[in-house]
Amino acid sequence: MSLEDIIGLKMTDEKLDEFGLERIDRVARYLPEQSRYMRRGITYAHRGFEEIAELLMNGKDITIVSGLNPSGPLHFGHLVIFNELLFFQKLGAEIFIPITNDETYVVGKSDTLSKARKNAYEQVIPSIIALGFDPKKTHIYVDSDYKDLYNFAMYISKKINYSTSRAVFGFKDEDNMGTMFYRACVQTAQILMPQLPEFGGPKHTLIPVGIDQDPYILLSRDFAKKFKMKPPAGLYMQFMKGLNGGSKMSKSIPGSAIYVTDSEKEIRNKIMNAFTGGGDTLKEHKEKGGNPEVCPIYQMYEYHFVEDDNELDEICKTCRKGTRSCGDCKKELVNKVIPFLKEHQEKRKKVTPKMIGKYLLDKELNSFLKY
Amino acid sequence: MSLEDIIGLKMTDEKLDEFGLERIDRVARYLPEQSRYMRRGITYAHRGFEEIAELLMNGKDITIVSGLNPSGPLHFGHLVIFNELLFFQKLGAEIFIPITNDETYVVGKSDTLSKARKNAYEQVIPSIIALGFDPKKTHIYVDSDYKDLYNFAMYISKKINYSTSRAVFGFKDEDNMGTMFYRACVQTAQILMPQLPEFGGPKHTLIPVGIDQDPYILLSRDFAKKFKMKPPAGLYMQFMKGLNGGSKMSKSIPGSAIYVTDSEKEIRNKIMNAFTGGGDTLKEHKEKGGNPEVCPIYQMYEYHFVEDDNELDEICKTCRKGTRSCGDCKKELVNKVIPFLKEHQEKRKKVTPKMIGKYLLDKELNSFLKY
Repeated sequence: MSLEDIIGLKMTDEKLDEFGLERIDRVARYLPEQSRYMRRGITYAHRGFEEIAELLMNGKDITIVSGLNPSGPLHFGHLVIFNELLFFQKLGAEIFIPITNDETYVVGKSDTLSKARKNAYEQVIPSIIALGFDPKKTHIYVDSDYKDLYNFAMYISKKINYSTSRAVFGFKDEDNMGTMFYRACVQTAQILMPQLPEFGGPKHTLIPVGIDQDPYILLSRDFAKKFKMKPPAGLYMQFMKGLNGGSKMSKSIPGSAIYVTDSEKEIRNKIMNAFTGGGDTLKEHKEKGGNPEVCPIYQMYEYHFVEDDNELDEICKTCRKGTRSCGDCKKELVNKVIPFLKEHQEKRKKVTPKMIGKYLLDKELNSFLKY
Repeated sequence: MSLEDIIGLKMTDEKLDEFGLERIDRVARYLPEQSRYMRRGITYAHRGFEEIAELLMNGKDITIVSGLNPSGPLHFGHLVIFNELLFFQKLGAEIFIPITNDETYVVGKSDTLSKARKNAYEQVIPSIIALGFDPKKTHIYVDSDYKDLYNFAMYISKKINYSTSRAVFGFKDEDNMGTMFYRACVQTAQILMPQLPEFGGPKHTLIPVGIDQDPYILLSRDFAKKFKMKPPAGLYMQFMKGLNGGSKMSKSIPGSAIYVTDSEKEIRNKIMNAFTGGGDTLKEHKEKGGNPEVCPIYQMYEYHFVEDDNELDEICKTCRKGTRSCGDCKKELVNKVIPFLKEHQEKRKKVTPKMIGKYLLDKELNSFLKY
């Protein structure tokens, strides 16, 4: 079973063991509060979260790094990570958000760096701000505009050889040099950066990721030791299914995602045309019931629109019984998504360059360059 | 025959053909003036120099890029390149000098980036200024301090895949990721940078190198086409022999070099203890004569201390005849090197941070990031 295959699946204990991961519920119970995603098994596993949990239990601040590839506007798949970040920020987390326009360029189809940079400032950052992050505890940077990131990546690069990188990331001969340098060095630099003396490190950091990004976590934990830093902890989250029933909501899969910039009409069309876990006909649905486990519409409730666990349970049960029809379920969702995104879009419009400036990281990093 | 083997050898026409290079004398005769090194075959070959020669013939400016690895103070081996650069600057060349502290770090033994950075500002740049470069036409930058270099390197990186890089540079599995990224992308970025619109490009550029750096030239010529730039021309120069008789004057070969920072005593000791092309005994030398072709002391005259070709011929002839003894020849050299370096050291002392500031490149490069 490859990493690709298990994206979107709830992993068995055996699978977790194979990856060397622990279930999150064993430590989450000690937190002052559990997130919606922890309670529902969406945030399901971790690597080294114990120290983070201890800090939170003792009312101490933690640091999180969570990067984003600015290939387009945000969609509900991205909001899963951001909701979890907001949960941790409520508990006191300082959050670093690298907007990786270099990644978009080197791994993607776009032939310019500038397109992803434009997306970063015009799409991604205004949405992050509109989601309610605290400017005092949130540090955003766009890779190509944050000078010392590459210096730190070069600093790190001396300690990773090609054969290790190939083993960790599965590089192929036809991969471009930028992708290789980005994955092995720039991404590691993003993860370890908050542990530099400029940010008061070394300190415990948490990296929320999909299981496909586990190689970064492993490599950065290995590195942290070389630089006398703390091994970053990984927090593993499920991906949202695509609206078309695919395993992942993603810009690269057409029709799979609702974007925060979508119009009422687009929202309505996407939801009403979405794949569901219901029966092929209404008759069959009423007789046999639906299957919320494979249903992207159910996931929209589970991940985004129902906070109360009992209410969610009710949706799940009535779906299984067949008393809740897919048509009604979709219409109900449309009526939740439209006002939510309308509000988000209003907030986004009010984001000014001055407000963006409050979030942008501009600290010079030169502890590793000083003489 | 590997590239390593031919370093320091005067190449035969067959060898030049094998590398696809042309002898410089065929085009140099059209220049307004030939350099000392061209006249003596020290600057011996080129790849694509014709367009550069044409510009110079017509009194037009050319652009040169010549990087330097700041692993220590400059030695007479470095001065060979700088003398040739000064020759071209007299004819109107604008010169870019990247000081590659990232290279020193990733390919070298040093465990810090900062040591090479210190060397760049405290050793290398003051010497370059003391050598008499024109601040209006000389642009120096230290890699880790010139932000947009890495952005441009990332921009380029998408167009080079690993298998091409490996073929060009002979990468091995144990090479670190920084070395690979530096050689394939950062060095190419240095070479192509003056052709960005910010510097009035595309335009013809000249890169003086040792034959071991021919892979960079080939790769950057290939790239230039992809970015609609002019293929950079390569100018191939001989390395100076080491004082110990080795094939190269280099910091990594102990005792092989005289540094511009050496004291009178060090200069005297190094020269008086140097390997020569003379006979084993004075008697044998007088009988059989010496061999200036293998003699690093003769090279000091040829490369640095005798401008007049007839005077050099005289030294060469009297050596071959055996009438010029190695002891006398060395003493004569000591008396040339000491005042030369004393003057250089005096000039270096007068270099202020403000003067350095006049040479440092601070132009923002974002034609490839603009949207």
